[in-house]
Amino acid sequence: MDFVSLFIKDFIAQLQSPTLAFLIGGMIIAALGSELVIPESICTIIVFMLLTKIGLTGGIAIRKSNLTEMVLPMIFAIMVGIIVVFIARYTLAKLPKVKVVDAIATGGLFGAVSGSTMAAGLTVLEEQKIPFEAWTGALYPFMDIPALVTAIVVANIYLNKKKLRESADSAMEESLSKQPAAAGNYPSTRQEYLSQQKDPDDNRVKIWPIIEESLRGPALSAMLLGLALGLFTQPENVYKSFYDPAFRGLLSILMLVMGMEAWSRVGELRKVAQWYVVYSVIAPFIHGSIAFGLGMIAHYTTGFSWGGVVVLAVIASSSSDISGPPTLRAGIPSANPSAYIGASTAVGTPIAIGLCIPFFVGLAQALGGG
Amino acid sequence: MDFVSLFIKDFIAQLQSPTLAFLIGGMIIAALGSELVIPESICTIIVFMLLTKIGLTGGIAIRKSNLTEMVLPMIFAIMVGIIVVFIARYTLAKLPKVKVVDAIATGGLFGAVSGSTMAAGLTVLEEQKIPFEAWTGALYPFMDIPALVTAIVVANIYLNKKKLRESADSAMEESLSKQPAAAGNYPSTRQEYLSQQKDPDDNRVKIWPIIEESLRGPALSAMLLGLALGLFTQPENVYKSFYDPAFRGLLSILMLVMGMEAWSRVGELRKVAQWYVVYSVIAPFIHGSIAFGLGMIAHYTTGFSWGGVVVLAVIASSSSDISGPPTLRAGIPSANPSAYIGASTAVGTPIAIGLCIPFFVGLAQALGGG
Amino acid sequence: MDFVSLFIKDFIAQLQSPTLAFLIGGMIIAALGSELVIPESICTIIVFMLLTKIGLTGGIAIRKSNLTEMVLPMIFAIMVGIIVVFIARYTLAKLPKVKVVDAIATGGLFGAVSGSTMAAGLTVLEEQKIPFEAWTGALYPFMDIPALVTAIVVANIYLNKKKLRESADSAMEESLSKQPAAAGNYPSTRQEYLSQQKDPDDNRVKIWPIIEESLRGPALSAMLLGLALGLFTQPENVYKSFYDPAFRGLLSILMLVMGMEAWSRVGELRKVAQWYVVYSVIAPFIHGSIAFGLGMIAHYTTGFSWGGVVVLAVIASSSSDISGPPTLRAGIPSANPSAYIGASTAVGTPIAIGLCIPFFVGLAQALGGG
Repeated sequence: MDFVSLFIKDFIAQLQSPTLAFLIGGMIIAALGSELVIPESICTIIVFMLLTKIGLTGGIAIRKSNLTEMVLPMIFAIMVGIIVVFIARYTLAKLPKVKVVDAIATGGLFGAVSGSTMAAGLTVLEEQKIPFEAWTGALYPFMDIPALVTAIVVANIYLNKKKLRESADSAMEESLSKQPAAAGNYPSTRQEYLSQQKDPDDNRVKIWPIIEESLRGPALSAMLLGLALGLFTQPENVYKSFYDPAFRGLLSILMLVMGMEAWSRVGELRKVAQWYVVYSVIAPFIHGSIAFGLGMIAHYTTGFSWGGVVVLAVIASSSSDISGPPTLRAGIPSANPSAYIGASTAVGTPIAIGLCIPFFVGLAQALGGG
Repeated sequence: MDFVSLFIKDFIAQLQSPTLAFLIGGMIIAALGSELVIPESICTIIVFMLLTKIGLTGGIAIRKSNLTEMVLPMIFAIMVGIIVVFIARYTLAKLPKVKVVDAIATGGLFGAVSGSTMAAGLTVLEEQKIPFEAWTGALYPFMDIPALVTAIVVANIYLNKKKLRESADSAMEESLSKQPAAAGNYPSTRQEYLSQQKDPDDNRVKIWPIIEESLRGPALSAMLLGLALGLFTQPENVYKSFYDPAFRGLLSILMLVMGMEAWSRVGELRKVAQWYVVYSVIAPFIHGSIAFGLGMIAHYTTGFSWGGVVVLAVIASSSSDISGPPTLRAGIPSANPSAYIGASTAVGTPIAIGLCIPFFVGLAQALGGG
Repeated sequence: MDFVSLFIKDFIAQLQSPTLAFLIGGMIIAALGSELVIPESICTIIVFMLLTKIGLTGGIAIRKSNLTEMVLPMIFAIMVGIIVVFIARYTLAKLPKVKVVDAIATGGLFGAVSGSTMAAGLTVLEEQKIPFEAWTGALYPFMDIPALVTAIVVANIYLNKKKLRESADSAMEESLSKQPAAAGNYPSTRQEYLSQQKDPDDNRVKIWPIIEESLRGPALSAMLLGLALGLFTQPENVYKSFYDPAFRGLLSILMLVMGMEAWSRVGELRKVAQWYVVYSVIAPFIHGSIAFGLGMIAHYTTGFSWGGVVVLAVIASSSSDISGPPTLRAGIPSANPSAYIGASTAVGTPIAIGLCIPFFVGLAQALGGG
């Protein structure tokens, strides 16, 4: 069983990598009741620097590389982003005690990408000396935005259908009872009346504002700024003297914070159906495996590196922690944030970083004969 | 036209320098509505580190260099600081809808120095591999303090004269109307009465408290602390391992913030006379050119380097963003801060960094045959 | 007098070291009224990074070294932590106008360890190129926790004895006055009544919660996290690329802050008995000398390096600034925080960093023939 033994050996070695060790360390000290606090402003600037660096890397790489080889991985990234939402729609949403809009929003968050998880994946690849295309970080928005757009569109279509069905039901009730004044569906406030007036337009969810809002979020704007600066200017010296050397260290602090955060959010999961926990454990592996499979197609057809396949799998298994939640809150206001944020932060992210990264790295090493 | 073509080629190349690119990037993402926020505390520590580093550089350089060669550039720095205020007094202040005190305060702010603009100038010189005296950063306070002192003194002299004229007028009105009790110039509050009692002393504006307050401001105290540590201690190892390598990267973050800030302040300009915009665009070039001309005298007489001439021109074209406003607010309380801060932050600073730096660098390269 | 001249020469040279120079610089600019402010969040992250780095260094070192050679220094660290409290109990507490509980709490704070002072000591040793065992940073908790535990236990034993004596006195008064209702010692509130009911248990102060609280404090949890990561994982790359190079620079900022803080706290000392000032000046030298003497025993018996002896002396002369105060406040609520915090921050810490570090480094160099 050469494959399995190679894989297990590798998996254990990776848990000793500082990136994963800081995550686990954060969970342990939070569990032990440590009063350590990393200030909010420090986390903000770390996320900014990590994503700017990933953007700069991508931009500089794209400037120097063959654009055609990026096409297939980008298409696969978009596909995975969309598929993940539909998986949640037809699995999580069908489970008992799970509200359909909550499930769709959770799917959107798990389809969207976590910059920190991606940063951790890139760092582990470097630590393991597995080569990957430098532009793979630029796949981020190609998976992130389609996932959020799909989730918001699917949720709104569902809500509109439900409303139509309910108003049909209530119309039937009305004709039966012949008491129009008592019908439950009349607008109870002027606000609601006005929003009903706009319904004909609202049936077609506007996609552009969702995309625009995603792009304006702090995570994506930092990354796209880095990308643009990498593409159109000569940032090599500031990249080499500042953003690149600081990356790994800043990531270690962020991993610690995410570990502590994950532990402190565990309590929130008690408030929602336990199926969210099951989903959050299994989904990262399934999403990552789909992306890994698609990545293998790109590997055998266009020579996409095994490291690149791992990056695609890691961003698929990650769930958004910064940019996703506010976009979803605005796009699907009726969904319960503690369901999707709890599932993602408390379970999805540690699983993605602590288990999926070593899993897919090990898989690539075993398959690629690394 | 070898000179012009050299200049234009150089100008365009410099806009690709990461320092300027981050400034322009900040303006663009702010214009696109990005929600990216760099925490206030991060900006504070960046400014502290940049100015400490500039101070340390200056202090270490002064320790090792010939003091006589600094005399002429320092005298020129003081001269420019004073001249700039009088330029505003006799141009901006004479324009329609511009209040005289506001114009003097704006002149003070444009005469004072921006640490970030200077840092950007020093970095662009390094990026272009143009040599300059390491102590030039220490010219900062020699221009900054005279400008602020001059502005506050000129404004107070003007206000005192105006008050005397007004009370003479009202005295005349009084004698005409013979209704002393109704005269508008009596102190309406005890406070005002007391401050009138003190007037005889106040006519002579106290200069030392203004200097003291400038020196105590966060920007100048960080710089002077660095200067003193560079002069009297051995900070070389912490300088080389920390302040120097971090400089360029921290500056890139600050440039981004200043770009975003400039964009967000553009709206404030609508509230003041449009002449402020005209002044803020033209003044940095005029101030810089005066300093460049004086610097050339030092170049031909005492061998001041072309790079040093550029530094003198850049600090002249810069306008203060941190230390200046609070000093002016305290010194000329009747001036409208949104006039001078808006003019400086929204127009003056981006012009100084984005246009004046490449302009004067290009000029020096063309003249110096770089 | 070769020893004395060597010592004095060395002492003066060390005041030029950037670490001590920034401390003195901070005191000077605060005295001159500088408005420079280093944001709180920056101080927090600096302390986190310094202590994580010290922990990582210790953990990596322990992994690679012979455990038996650590035993003696650790025992000495514990001994010093306990002795320091008893010194305060039998000197400071006996002085006029000094309350016994305040004195015990002050002793606890001076026995506990300051991470920043230790960081400064380690850096000065490196600057002076004096070798020391890399694991010496890990002595921190072995002195810190015993000191805090001893102080809280001693204070509670004292308070319990005092209470028993007082109730005996009041019982006697009662029997004399035969007016039981007027006796002062009846519980005046239900709270007090309940706490008296629990007294039998409370007479034995619970030690484990005090240890637990010390370990959970931000300073010790960062250090122990680093220690654990250094011991059980492979953090070498993030250590070399981030925590180690940033150490000296971050420390310089923290020294500046501590200098400013010390100056601003000087005023608080006026509110407490002047004996606190005398104690805070003398105690760091006495505590350091005891530790230095014990360290010399380890030097001659187990080959503990002279650098290690200095580290032991420096942590003994330091007084806790971060972890200690909250633990003491919780453990000895009746002690006056402005007594022990003022004594430590305004006098003890600058004395320990600015005088004791050069003193013990010079002593080791003179004795060790460095």
